[in-house]
Amino acid sequence: MSKQNIVKVGIVQFASAPEKNLAKAAAQCRAAAADGAQIICLQELFRSDYFCVTEDHQNFALAESIPGESTASLSAVAKETGAVIIASLFEKRVPGLYHNTAAVLDADGQLLGTYRKMHIPDDPAFYEKFYFTPGDQGFKVFNTRHGRVGVLVCWDQWFPEAARLTALRGADILFYPTAIGWADGEQPEIRRAQHDAWRTIQRSHAIANGVFVVSVNRVGRENGLEFWGGSFACDPFGEMLCEAAHDREETRVVELDLADIDRTRTHWPFLRDRRTDAYGDLTRRFID
Amino acid sequence: MSKQNIVKVGIVQFASAPEKNLAKAAAQCRAAAADGAQIICLQELFRSDYFCVTEDHQNFALAESIPGESTASLSAVAKETGAVIIASLFEKRVPGLYHNTAAVLDADGQLLGTYRKMHIPDDPAFYEKFYFTPGDQGFKVFNTRHGRVGVLVCWDQWFPEAARLTALRGADILFYPTAIGWADGEQPEIRRAQHDAWRTIQRSHAIANGVFVVSVNRVGRENGLEFWGGSFACDPFGEMLCEAAHDREETRVVELDLADIDRTRTHWPFLRDRRTDAYGDLTRRFID
Repeated sequence: MSKQNIVKVGIVQFASAPEKNLAKAAAQCRAAAADGAQIICLQELFRSDYFCVTEDHQNFALAESIPGESTASLSAVAKETGAVIIASLFEKRVPGLYHNTAAVLDADGQLLGTYRKMHIPDDPAFYEKFYFTPGDQGFKVFNTRHGRVGVLVCWDQWFPEAARLTALRGADILFYPTAIGWADGEQPEIRRAQHDAWRTIQRSHAIANGVFVVSVNRVGRENGLEFWGGSFACDPFGEMLCEAAHDREETRVVELDLADIDRTRTHWPFLRDRRTDAYGDLTRRFID
Repeated sequence: MSKQNIVKVGIVQFASAPEKNLAKAAAQCRAAAADGAQIICLQELFRSDYFCVTEDHQNFALAESIPGESTASLSAVAKETGAVIIASLFEKRVPGLYHNTAAVLDADGQLLGTYRKMHIPDDPAFYEKFYFTPGDQGFKVFNTRHGRVGVLVCWDQWFPEAARLTALRGADILFYPTAIGWADGEQPEIRRAQHDAWRTIQRSHAIANGVFVVSVNRVGRENGLEFWGGSFACDPFGEMLCEAAHDREETRVVELDLADIDRTRTHWPFLRDRRTDAYGDLTRRFID
């Protein structure tokens, strides 16, 4: 196994303090890079509190263009540190058209591209369909200086199709910037089951596709929600490599050995055996 | 919640003793039914030892027609007990055409239909591509007297597409007759990881689709393999309802509350949000 297969990934999990979030993100990216991180992922919509907790037209003022203020600022950090940065932003595309978008900033500071969240939730306290138009760019891979990465966002986590299509485009690592939490008053047993399902479905994407999965979640209380942290990285067989706490900010750097992809897929050759001839109905809503 | 939503499922996990397997299966189906089981699943290729451990033309003599001896025998048990029986068999369709097929026997003893394993493995000691032609019937649901069940077989477990397509056809419970085990000499840490990945990927199908998953595995040593048992049932959020031991035969009956499907899907409405417009490339092998 040669050293060139090793990629160090930075996970930045923090509690929102809106006025400080951009500076905080930049500082934690620098800290992760100082610790060797080559690809760093920030949590979903890191610039602000999770505003989708209500439907309020005022919140559209939080959106920004891409490229814009956030990408300019983080591009400078990427260039300075030589690390790729994945930044989840509230994108204003044109008036009346907003997306939940991840910007991928390459190690030289260039905006390599964006992924617009394809699956949009809508749940009490997660009113995202009010704010975000579903992505129209499909599933993508970004050939960054430090690796081929796929980016998906939060609710996308629950859809095996999203992970599969991103892996089929050649992604070695799937990043999921995320904002998921428990509602006030939920019982401990419900909380445990929710976190466990979230962790399980994402680990399953690693297993099914033979890719690394890195999930970066918010932490801390905001407006009746307790974001559960628990950011993690797992290997191509779903084995946990690191897992952050539920109750505190953490910046973690984890080493991924990309040669594990080849080893795992050779021993568990699922890509060989997919019945592509029989999957056409996956484009149907239901098969009545 | 009305009583009519409850379905009792029987899991029959045993060690192969080829001459006795049919009688053993019948006896354990009767035992499960006596304990209230309404839908009973047997392990993969329960009639014989797991013969795919080598490529040997003699083994084709183990195959049988469907309907045939096994279905006749188990149909009588189904009729006698009023339980649905899912029987995984080595099907001889015509000379030179063999399948790994699950027969679904309804509670009145009628052969409701068959599912022919769609994804065929081929690995040292699991030389299934030598024996089995991949299924040509696609993914199916069976409207049994006791519930709408989907049947998938072993290697299908690793493919989210199979679970999704079966759920989209209206299955409430996915059954997986299975024969998976550890090779002699594998380290304990590897064994743990393999079992954990197997359990995780199947729980993920429950979560992604909001269905129950029931997996029935062999147990015991055969020809350098140690089948790891661990048969289980989980609910539509992937929560374990029962889990058998790794090292002994077990017949278990577990109660499923089908109303959990509606509750779970209402709170986690993944079917609502699938991007069916963007999944066309799932029929591709890879997207270069």
